[in-house]
Amino acid sequence: MLSIIAVSLDWLGIVVFATTGALVASRKEMDIVGFALLATATGIGGGTLRDVVLGLTPVFWVRQPEYLLVCVAVACLTFFTAHLPQSRYRILLWLDAIGMAVFAVAGAQIALNAGANEFIAIAMGVATATFGGIIRDVLGGETPIILSREIYVTAALSGATIHVALSAAGLTATIASVAGFFGAFALRAAAVRYRWSLPRYKSRPGRPSSELPKV
Amino acid sequence: MLSIIAVSLDWLGIVVFATTGALVASRKEMDIVGFALLATATGIGGGTLRDVVLGLTPVFWVRQPEYLLVCVAVACLTFFTAHLPQSRYRILLWLDAIGMAVFAVAGAQIALNAGANEFIAIAMGVATATFGGIIRDVLGGETPIILSREIYVTAALSGATIHVALSAAGLTATIASVAGFFGAFALRAAAVRYRWSLPRYKSRPGRPSSELPKV
Amino acid sequence: MLSIIAVSLDWLGIVVFATTGALVASRKEMDIVGFALLATATGIGGGTLRDVVLGLTPVFWVRQPEYLLVCVAVACLTFFTAHLPQSRYRILLWLDAIGMAVFAVAGAQIALNAGANEFIAIAMGVATATFGGIIRDVLGGETPIILSREIYVTAALSGATIHVALSAAGLTATIASVAGFFGAFALRAAAVRYRWSLPRYKSRPGRPSSELPKV
Repeated sequence: MLSIIAVSLDWLGIVVFATTGALVASRKEMDIVGFALLATATGIGGGTLRDVVLGLTPVFWVRQPEYLLVCVAVACLTFFTAHLPQSRYRILLWLDAIGMAVFAVAGAQIALNAGANEFIAIAMGVATATFGGIIRDVLGGETPIILSREIYVTAALSGATIHVALSAAGLTATIASVAGFFGAFALRAAAVRYRWSLPRYKSRPGRPSSELPKV
Repeated sequence: MLSIIAVSLDWLGIVVFATTGALVASRKEMDIVGFALLATATGIGGGTLRDVVLGLTPVFWVRQPEYLLVCVAVACLTFFTAHLPQSRYRILLWLDAIGMAVFAVAGAQIALNAGANEFIAIAMGVATATFGGIIRDVLGGETPIILSREIYVTAALSGATIHVALSAAGLTATIASVAGFFGAFALRAAAVRYRWSLPRYKSRPGRPSSELPKV
Repeated sequence: MLSIIAVSLDWLGIVVFATTGALVASRKEMDIVGFALLATATGIGGGTLRDVVLGLTPVFWVRQPEYLLVCVAVACLTFFTAHLPQSRYRILLWLDAIGMAVFAVAGAQIALNAGANEFIAIAMGVATATFGGIIRDVLGGETPIILSREIYVTAALSGATIHVALSAAGLTATIASVAGFFGAFALRAAAVRYRWSLPRYKSRPGRPSSELPKV
């Protein structure tokens, strides 16, 4: 039962993140194979990091090739429909928020299933939720979304923490997952909508290399 | 026999990719140790990803240090000869095409040897063929070659697919490898020479962050 | 005894590198969770690569969550104190030099403990010493420190080589570690202070993409 929920969430997160990868490919005017590469790397990137770090190898998509097929299918669908919405960027932002919230919960749950302690499970939720987006933005040459002004990593951290805390408190995995997902998503959604951010370090920004002092 | 071919191809790909890494180091005017680092990371990067994802650890170059020695030797040789050709960039492009074609086939073959199914083997061929170049371009601060206009990932995909399909059809690994290599190389070579590209997504390019809509 | 030294050095390196990650976060004016993410990724990045490549999974911080807690604590401390020093950049440079020197030795020692041969141990020292900084600079959008003009990778290589050579010569791990650390640190420190660099490849720098020849 635990693992059914984790697997379902994993699928949802992969499809949603794969779509954001394909949308970045459309922003860069790539060809259909480029769409497939970026969608796949974004969709499976977080889970690959999680499995490698936990030692669950061969990683999930080697054991179950369906994951790759779905990412490729999502890429093809996006290639032919990405011109329809008025603002691809807005859709990208919202899908990214859903994927991040889903993976924060699923990553934490899978780590708990693998016997990791609570603190590791939270870290794994955050890593899984952010790594796909990092790969996508590096490969696509975009500014990494984790550097965005609005709350992002904090939302992933909140979702994973809620999920792990409620599970530790004895609630069922379903309730803990749903609460964790909505916690993460609501926080990110509000941050995107109302430009929320945490207090930032603001003594002064870094100087460009040319102005740095002789050491 | 299967593994002799896979290992020979692997060596060829590593030497060729290591040379491209060293050529990027020369474009950036690095010192000889920088050459060694970039050559090694480019040469062994794809295979390292492949082994980690398949769970074949310790990875191949930990089991056989000769691979590292060869990458370092290639780096030294390139350091003292890179000024000879008139256009390093042209050589870099062609060697990269050879390395990509070799790894597309070798990556797929090694995955098949490890018991992966056909679809995974193709994906592993593509991943192995592209990952070394991605590392090289990220470390060297170059525009990633996978974002280049001309057919690249598609060529790797074709080579891996030809190899896996011919193997599944019962042909010997030698024939399948050679056919896969020439398929990938010919496609990339024609793309570089005649500026071939697949139809690109072209509704409109992405707007820069400054012009993006309020969400 | 061997492993006590390796573990102590590992802790020192992680704390120091985590601080450099947090300092880059302060240059980018991130929030406190961004500090934690960058500090953690920088602190544990090199060791994670080392464990994954050697097949020592689950990786060290999954087995011992204290490592994550320390990185987060370092990030919080830095968030509230980074405005105090006059030049954060200078501190970043020097801490990075200490972390690099520590990891060059610790990475090599842990590889030797895991049964790797001398050449692999040196390579692992270099990889561990440089990878955390690479992650930090990629995530933080800084120019990678390995591309800096002054001797960097060479210092890591020297430290790892000294350590491995002295160990092979029969000296105790303590002496070999201390000698390796000071070798690497002194070389980097002199390079930063006096702008030392190795002779660089200097036929000519690479042309920008726009001026590259038709192939």
